[in-house]
Amino acid sequence: MQILKSEAELKRALENKKTSLGFVPTMGALHQGHLSLVEKAQQSTDQVIVSIFVNPLQFGPKEDFQKYPRVLEKDFALLEKQKTDFVFVPRVEDVYPQGWKTKINVHDLANVLCGKFRPGHFEGVCTVVARFFQLIEPSHAYFGLKDLQQFLVLQQMARDLFPRLKVIGCETFREVEGLAMSSRNQYLDAKQKEESLAIFRGLNKAEQIYKQGTLDSSELIKVFLQEIEKVQSIEVQYAEIRELENLELIEQVNLPSALFFAGFLGSTRLIDNRILHASEKLL
Amino acid sequence: MQILKSEAELKRALENKKTSLGFVPTMGALHQGHLSLVEKAQQSTDQVIVSIFVNPLQFGPKEDFQKYPRVLEKDFALLEKQKTDFVFVPRVEDVYPQGWKTKINVHDLANVLCGKFRPGHFEGVCTVVARFFQLIEPSHAYFGLKDLQQFLVLQQMARDLFPRLKVIGCETFREVEGLAMSSRNQYLDAKQKEESLAIFRGLNKAEQIYKQGTLDSSELIKVFLQEIEKVQSIEVQYAEIRELENLELIEQVNLPSALFFAGFLGSTRLIDNRILHASEKLL
Repeated sequence: MQILKSEAELKRALENKKTSLGFVPTMGALHQGHLSLVEKAQQSTDQVIVSIFVNPLQFGPKEDFQKYPRVLEKDFALLEKQKTDFVFVPRVEDVYPQGWKTKINVHDLANVLCGKFRPGHFEGVCTVVARFFQLIEPSHAYFGLKDLQQFLVLQQMARDLFPRLKVIGCETFREVEGLAMSSRNQYLDAKQKEESLAIFRGLNKAEQIYKQGTLDSSELIKVFLQEIEKVQSIEVQYAEIRELENLELIEQVNLPSALFFAGFLGSTRLIDNRILHASEKLL
Repeated sequence: MQILKSEAELKRALENKKTSLGFVPTMGALHQGHLSLVEKAQQSTDQVIVSIFVNPLQFGPKEDFQKYPRVLEKDFALLEKQKTDFVFVPRVEDVYPQGWKTKINVHDLANVLCGKFRPGHFEGVCTVVARFFQLIEPSHAYFGLKDLQQFLVLQQMARDLFPRLKVIGCETFREVEGLAMSSRNQYLDAKQKEESLAIFRGLNKAEQIYKQGTLDSSELIKVFLQEIEKVQSIEVQYAEIRELENLELIEQVNLPSALFFAGFLGSTRLIDNRILHASEKLL
């Protein structure tokens, strides 16, 4: 595994790159979900590169940029074990050279859900990922569907700006009990981890009654929230059913759509989702 | 001269393109200023392509998108006479394929001056020009310095997203009497054209006293506005001296900077500027 610490090292390493290059962007603090993306990339590309970069641009002023977990040596060991070809750990000045001012956004998709509660977040995500696409020129890029809105935003951005690139969404990786894997789960104590399972139970219940024929969004959300409300410590930020093309609210689940959830457990923000009606976009 | 009317025609024509390709993006209604950009491009590149596209994304809802002059046959004749290699006149669906949602912006530079009065304007300009850069892959791109803020915004966008591309600013082309050439000058009647010359006179006066040693911005602007105010029909939108790196207001003209003006003559919006202290960025 080659560790590349600057744009110059990246360029040198990729000079003789093979025909297909799979890219997995991360902010580090890797877990099984990230490794499953690497594995998926390895199945369909010749070489795989993982980036580790805690992107300042996608954090709000009151968010957890400073305390976001940084465990580089542990990450390297996991990626080495996974037989990753390259890991790119750029400095801020490699990603945003002096004077950088350009921002990229996908307005219609980025203004709702997490975008509404985290102003500038998706702009930061789009900009950094576009910058990595430009630097690395991968043939394939892999993202977890735990961050479903992020996936839809980035898929659209890539379609518009990097039409030759294939963007692949990979199923949410969960703990045995059902909590969606996230680097932020480290912030939870044992009691909170237990309480967080209400999210998984709620999603399961909603999916269950959907499969039994309930198409009404408000009914599905009600069932979901009934589970959440059993745990008083979860503060809901949003629980909405939206279609997957433009992320518009829908009253009836009669086209590709998902139930999206965000909420707080203490000071830790958790998101999760369940695709009810699948879409070609996710294949 | 080859006229290319779609992305497919463009791609075919550029298959065997020579080593250097100069690009002049326009919205048509070409005048001598545009042709001087083509000429400048011809002096330093092997082939030149001009685009003509009235970009809906850069017009506000109350602006002149509908009435913007469209005189394609006349434009073709002028470009033919100028021995232009290619003219690209795409349809909206070539520029923004179905479902396009990505927007590009250069926040710090795009929020002041025209950006303040035309919300979304520079986002529209950045997005369309980035899209053309992506489609055409020119080696050089040419812009008039009449739109100085636009030039600075696009130069930064290109530096960030298209680092191999050379962006060149070309001096403002003026009518004999001094009015900066613009497709929008067609909206002016004879009396208004006469009145508009106050802008040129004001810029000259400000530059004159600057060269005589007045560095105080408010003093320079006062002298400029004294000329403007002699013509009651000019309604000033802004008259500001800003430095050219971040477009911040400056009190003293002691670094690269320009006096920027925008105003209305009747319903016609006119902009002009004078670089007082030149910058390497403009070379």
